[in-house]
Amino acid sequence: MKIKNKLTIHYDQKPIYDILLENDFSKLKDALIALGYEKRKLLIVTETNVAPLYLEEIKTLLTPIFREIVCFTFQAGEQQKQLSTVSAIYTTLIEHQFDRKDVLLALGGGVTGDLTGFTASTYLRGVDFVQVPTSLLAQVDSSIGGKTGVDFDSYKNMVGAFYQPSLVYINTGTLKTLPEHEFNSGLGEVIKHGLIKDKEYFSWISKHREEIARREPDVLKDMIYRSCEIKGDVVERDPKEKGERALLNFGHTLGHSIEKLMNFSMLHGDCVVIGSELASLISWKRGLISKEELEQIEELFQYFHFDTLPATLDYKEIVSATKLDKKMDQGQIKFILLHPIGNAKIDKTVTQEEMLWALESYKRLENL
Amino acid sequence: MKIKNKLTIHYDQKPIYDILLENDFSKLKDALIALGYEKRKLLIVTETNVAPLYLEEIKTLLTPIFREIVCFTFQAGEQQKQLSTVSAIYTTLIEHQFDRKDVLLALGGGVTGDLTGFTASTYLRGVDFVQVPTSLLAQVDSSIGGKTGVDFDSYKNMVGAFYQPSLVYINTGTLKTLPEHEFNSGLGEVIKHGLIKDKEYFSWISKHREEIARREPDVLKDMIYRSCEIKGDVVERDPKEKGERALLNFGHTLGHSIEKLMNFSMLHGDCVVIGSELASLISWKRGLISKEELEQIEELFQYFHFDTLPATLDYKEIVSATKLDKKMDQGQIKFILLHPIGNAKIDKTVTQEEMLWALESYKRLENL
Repeated sequence: MKIKNKLTIHYDQKPIYDILLENDFSKLKDALIALGYEKRKLLIVTETNVAPLYLEEIKTLLTPIFREIVCFTFQAGEQQKQLSTVSAIYTTLIEHQFDRKDVLLALGGGVTGDLTGFTASTYLRGVDFVQVPTSLLAQVDSSIGGKTGVDFDSYKNMVGAFYQPSLVYINTGTLKTLPEHEFNSGLGEVIKHGLIKDKEYFSWISKHREEIARREPDVLKDMIYRSCEIKGDVVERDPKEKGERALLNFGHTLGHSIEKLMNFSMLHGDCVVIGSELASLISWKRGLISKEELEQIEELFQYFHFDTLPATLDYKEIVSATKLDKKMDQGQIKFILLHPIGNAKIDKTVTQEEMLWALESYKRLENL
Repeated sequence: MKIKNKLTIHYDQKPIYDILLENDFSKLKDALIALGYEKRKLLIVTETNVAPLYLEEIKTLLTPIFREIVCFTFQAGEQQKQLSTVSAIYTTLIEHQFDRKDVLLALGGGVTGDLTGFTASTYLRGVDFVQVPTSLLAQVDSSIGGKTGVDFDSYKNMVGAFYQPSLVYINTGTLKTLPEHEFNSGLGEVIKHGLIKDKEYFSWISKHREEIARREPDVLKDMIYRSCEIKGDVVERDPKEKGERALLNFGHTLGHSIEKLMNFSMLHGDCVVIGSELASLISWKRGLISKEELEQIEELFQYFHFDTLPATLDYKEIVSATKLDKKMDQGQIKFILLHPIGNAKIDKTVTQEEMLWALESYKRLENL
C-alpha cells in the first residue's frame, strides 16, 4: 500500500469532511483556518488520561487563531458517557456564551468523540465540531461516520444523533503513548474491517502482524488509511444505517451483551472481538467459511492477546441480553455473518440455540 | 382564498412530509397506514390539559393498526420542556422495548411537539414522529419546520435538533376547546406571517378579524392554510436557519428576553407580540414603515387583547437579556425589521439605545 494523507467523506455525492492523517499536530492549525474558524470560540473537550499528554500542546498551537479557547476535562471512562456530562458541557458553553458559529473539538478516544459530537449536535440545534481521535479505535472507527451519542442507564449509545464532524484530524503519533491493551482493542476493529469487506486486507494484517504489534509508523499509517477508507466507503453508501452500514456491527450483537453484563469493565474492542469470534463460529457452523478460515481468524485474534470471554458470565444471560440491543428490527435480532471472509452479510435467522452453541464452543477454541 | 387540505414540505426539492388539514381526527388512521406504520409500536406523548380531551379518542382510533400503544402524559407547562422529561420518555421507550422502526406521536401544543420531536431525534439516533398539534400556535408555527428542543436552565430552546416529522396532522376542530388566551397567542404568529411575508394576508386578517375572533371554521381553515404555506415556504428555502428563516424570528429578540425575565409565566405568543410591536416601532423610527402602517399593526394586536409589557420589568434588563439570545451571530444581535409590511429584513445594526427607546415608547402606545 502507498501512504496517503487525506480522505474525503461524501454525502449525496457532495464532499462533507476530510480525514487528515499526520504524524503530529502541526497541520491542525491550518486545517482549522481553512474551515473558516479564525476568531471564533473553541471548546476543547478531553478527559483526564489524554489532557496531560496533549491538551497544552493543542491549546498553545491554536491560541493564535481563536478568539477564546475553553477546556472541559472529564474523568476518563465509559461511565462518563452520559447525559449528565453532556449537561455539564452545555453549562460551560452557556457560561462562555458560545453561539452557533463557535466550535467544539473532541480530543481523545471514542467516549470523548461520541460525547462531544452529541453535545455539538444538540447545542443550539447544532454547532460545528472537529474530531481529534487519539486512540486507535477512535481513529479507525468511531471518529468516522457521524455516529454520536451517550449511554442511558445501562444501555449503550441509546441516546444520540447522526451528526458529521467538520474535520477528522488523526495524529498517528498519539498511538505511541497508547497502553497496549487499548491499542490492541483498536486492532479488533481493524481486523473486523478486513473480515467484513476485504479479504486481501485481512491477509495483509496477518502478514504484518509483527510490525503492527511493534507499532511501526509507516505500517500503522497504511493500516489506518485502509481502515478509514473501508469505514468511509460504507458510511458514504449508507450514512444512517438503513442497510450496508449494519455490517460494521459484525461481532457487536453478542459483544454488546457481554460488554453490558460486565458493566462496561471490559474494553469495547475486546468485547467486539469475542463477538466476532462467536459470529465466525456460527458462520463456520453454517458452512459459510471453511475450518481453515476459522482458524486463521482465531489465530490472528489470539496473536494480539485480546481478552477472552469471562468465565463468570452465564451464557443464557448473554443471549437474553441481545434482545435489548438497539439493532433489533421489529423484534428480530440482526446478526452479521461472513459469506466468506471479506464479504459479510446481514442475517436475521440466527437462533438463540446457535448463539448458545457458539458460546459453548468458544471456550474450547480458547485452548486451540 | 380557497379551502385546501394538504401541503407538502420539501427539502432539496424532495417531498419530506405532508401537512394535512382536517376538521376531525377521522383521517389520521389512514394517513399513518400510508406511512407504513401498521404493526409498529406507538408512543403518544401528551400533557395533562390535552389528554382528557383527545387521548382516548386517538387511542381508540389507532388501536387497530398498531402492535402496541403506550401513552406518556406529562404535567402541562413550559416548565416540563426540559431534559428530565426527555429522560423520562427515554425510560418509557426502553421499558417497552421500542426499536428504530417504532413511532412517536406528539399530541398537544408547542411544548409537546418540541419535546417529542427532540426525543424522537435522539432516541436510538432517531425514530419517526408525527405531529398532531392541538393549539393554534403549534398548528401555524412550531409543528412545521423541524425545530425541536428543550430549555436548559432558564435558556429557551438551548438544546435541540433540526428533525423533521413524518406527518403533521392538523385537526382544526381542536381549536374549539382552546382557551381564548391561548387562541389569541397563536394569532400573534399568524399576524407575524402577514407582517413579514405578505401584506395582502395581513390586510385579509385585519378584514376578517371578527370572524377569526368568533372562530368561524372556514375562515380559520383558510387562515391556518395560508400561515402553514408561508411558514412552509420559508423553511423549505432555509431549513437550518442560515438566512431567510431568521425572518420568522420577527418580534423574538426582545420577546424572548421578556419571556425569560418573566420566568415563562407569560405565553410565548404574547411575548412575541410585544416584541413585534417593539420591532414595528423601531421600523417606524427608522422610516421603514409609515405612521399609518404602525397604527394598523397596533390596532390589530390590540383588537385581540394580547398581554402588554409587564410594568414590573426593568427596560435595561430586557435589553441586556438579548445578549444571551441564541440568535446572536459572533456577538451581534440579529434584529428583524419591516421594510415595509410584507417584507421583513434582517438587521444587525439595531442599538441598545433604539431598543430602550422602543420600550419607553411602547408604554405610550398602549393608550392609543
